[in-house]
Amino acid sequence: MSRVYNFGAGPSTIPLEVLEEAQKYLVDFHGNGMSIMEASHRSKMYDEVHNSAIESIRELYKVPQNFDILFLQGGASTQFAMVPLNLAMGGKVQYVDTGAWSAKAIKEAKIQGLDVEVVASSKDSSYDQIPSNIEFSDDADYTYITSNNTIYGTQFKEFPKTKAPLVVDASSDIFSYPIDWDRVDLLFAGAQKNAGLSGVTIVIINKDLLDRVKDSVPTMFRYKTHAEKDSLFNTPPTFGIYILDLVLKWIKSKGGVEAVAKNNEKKAAMLYDAIDNSDGFYTGHAKKDSRSLMNVSFNIKDGDSELESKLVNLATKVGMIGLKGHRSIGGLRASIYNAMSLEGVEALVELMDKFAKENK
Amino acid sequence: MSRVYNFGAGPSTIPLEVLEEAQKYLVDFHGNGMSIMEASHRSKMYDEVHNSAIESIRELYKVPQNFDILFLQGGASTQFAMVPLNLAMGGKVQYVDTGAWSAKAIKEAKIQGLDVEVVASSKDSSYDQIPSNIEFSDDADYTYITSNNTIYGTQFKEFPKTKAPLVVDASSDIFSYPIDWDRVDLLFAGAQKNAGLSGVTIVIINKDLLDRVKDSVPTMFRYKTHAEKDSLFNTPPTFGIYILDLVLKWIKSKGGVEAVAKNNEKKAAMLYDAIDNSDGFYTGHAKKDSRSLMNVSFNIKDGDSELESKLVNLATKVGMIGLKGHRSIGGLRASIYNAMSLEGVEALVELMDKFAKENK
Repeated sequence: MSRVYNFGAGPSTIPLEVLEEAQKYLVDFHGNGMSIMEASHRSKMYDEVHNSAIESIRELYKVPQNFDILFLQGGASTQFAMVPLNLAMGGKVQYVDTGAWSAKAIKEAKIQGLDVEVVASSKDSSYDQIPSNIEFSDDADYTYITSNNTIYGTQFKEFPKTKAPLVVDASSDIFSYPIDWDRVDLLFAGAQKNAGLSGVTIVIINKDLLDRVKDSVPTMFRYKTHAEKDSLFNTPPTFGIYILDLVLKWIKSKGGVEAVAKNNEKKAAMLYDAIDNSDGFYTGHAKKDSRSLMNVSFNIKDGDSELESKLVNLATKVGMIGLKGHRSIGGLRASIYNAMSLEGVEALVELMDKFAKENK
Repeated sequence: MSRVYNFGAGPSTIPLEVLEEAQKYLVDFHGNGMSIMEASHRSKMYDEVHNSAIESIRELYKVPQNFDILFLQGGASTQFAMVPLNLAMGGKVQYVDTGAWSAKAIKEAKIQGLDVEVVASSKDSSYDQIPSNIEFSDDADYTYITSNNTIYGTQFKEFPKTKAPLVVDASSDIFSYPIDWDRVDLLFAGAQKNAGLSGVTIVIINKDLLDRVKDSVPTMFRYKTHAEKDSLFNTPPTFGIYILDLVLKWIKSKGGVEAVAKNNEKKAAMLYDAIDNSDGFYTGHAKKDSRSLMNVSFNIKDGDSELESKLVNLATKVGMIGLKGHRSIGGLRASIYNAMSLEGVEALVELMDKFAKENK
């Protein structure tokens, strides 16, 4: 088998060690005579996996004891609705608009009839940056940001210090750097980029926020329901949580979130250097101080779509896939989540350098 | 490896052929150099799986063209909220109460402030039967039933003919017998009993019902959102849908839903015969005409918990697991979903006969 380098934005590459372990035990889970997929969510066999995943997150991500760690379903798109359903208290809610995902979150809050304040937006410059010097209102029910923007390749370098509880959509950069929990009150992520397969949503929430929800909110859409039952109120996505647990063990084996973060910086630097040293052949979409360590979005000769397609196709031929940029900005995008190896990035940089020389 | 017979209520046994196929291709999906878990939900590789699952359901389950087949998340518990959110139009809604799951669905409709009519209930006789001769109101916004009740082991023998659109929670008997789609307008099921692993919810809905939903309902909680985008509005639980697709192929290899239904009748008959021919040693919980073909709930000597535990433990020792009854009615429960083999049921019946002789 020849394994590809998968630069797709998500679902995306999963550590080979995780896949091999899952494969080994898929039919017979550690001598139990059955697959983990077949285990009751009330069984000892599954319980160990479930608790291991929660404990690993708490340990690796240094989550304080006053936060609950929940496993939900429905992805970030469901969180766009659940956040206001659970946290709005009749006052205004405050959003920073840094791209397509923030915009969707804002739309959902408006659907619920809330007083939505978009406190800053980079929409006018094609979301090429994280707005700076934002003046937050202290009296909002919550403040909402998207920590990393997959399409535009921008990322908060640090979370803002807000008086209102801060909600972070970390779908595309969870577990990729340490979190300052003093600044965050709710962090959520779909698992399919940095934490395994699609179908698991991780929610890390300050317990103080759990009681805000009204009784008129459907039971399944209340964080409190899941917090009270350790995410076993109903059948959770057991196999996805198992894969998440394996990914967390893999992070641990790599030295933890801090070590993974260093590696991410190194990988991103290699790619951005290749862009910056190309004499203008490649141009990054994001402004330098907003550049994402997870998604590197760039163009060739300011948008030569023929050359861009040529490079994407060339890369695919040599086993580097998922490099086509999002249709909204075109160009190329290399997603280099935790599980993308240094070797993968090296191979891409080498190809980019060669391609630039040949097509100047 | 010695494979157990898993009689658990769900997540439960998955055909060995499905697990073996998933294992074989887990790291390298048919020469693609990556796992299906890692594939973008917008890729050709995943698209084939997604469409194959939809087409197989339409073919095997004979779903008419005026129904959409959707893959959602959140299990039946989320459907308890989504059904009223999408189908209620200001009039009354009508439920048949046949057990714990119906009761939860009723509770969710009430949380939404609806005028809920419980048109029939078997609660007073510990849910030992499906109420008969129910008089349905014609003017309800919808009528709701649970086709099979996992805890009490009861099952509708045929769906009622109602004028109001009929909603069926088929979580524990989907794909186990053919459906008369003239009588059904919405059928849903969590996949973890008869259709693979937990984390996928199958919804089959008459297109006529899609436009009822109000714009104030969050985007993700509208069936319409998912119907319009072929369940690709956001990232679906791709791996779960892959396993579902394999389960559907397995059903096809067994001769389709009709053949599987015949096998289910045979398996259930063997177990109920063992109960009925035990001279009162075993007693079934459900009345005979309401007996489920999926979950056989029974007691020993009308509830001798010591003997019941003894049999559960004995069974576990010889590789038959998940037989402990639900805490609400005690006793034993053998869940014999599609994937439980005839051999498994034979082994259980043999053990039961022997145990009855030794403990009379």
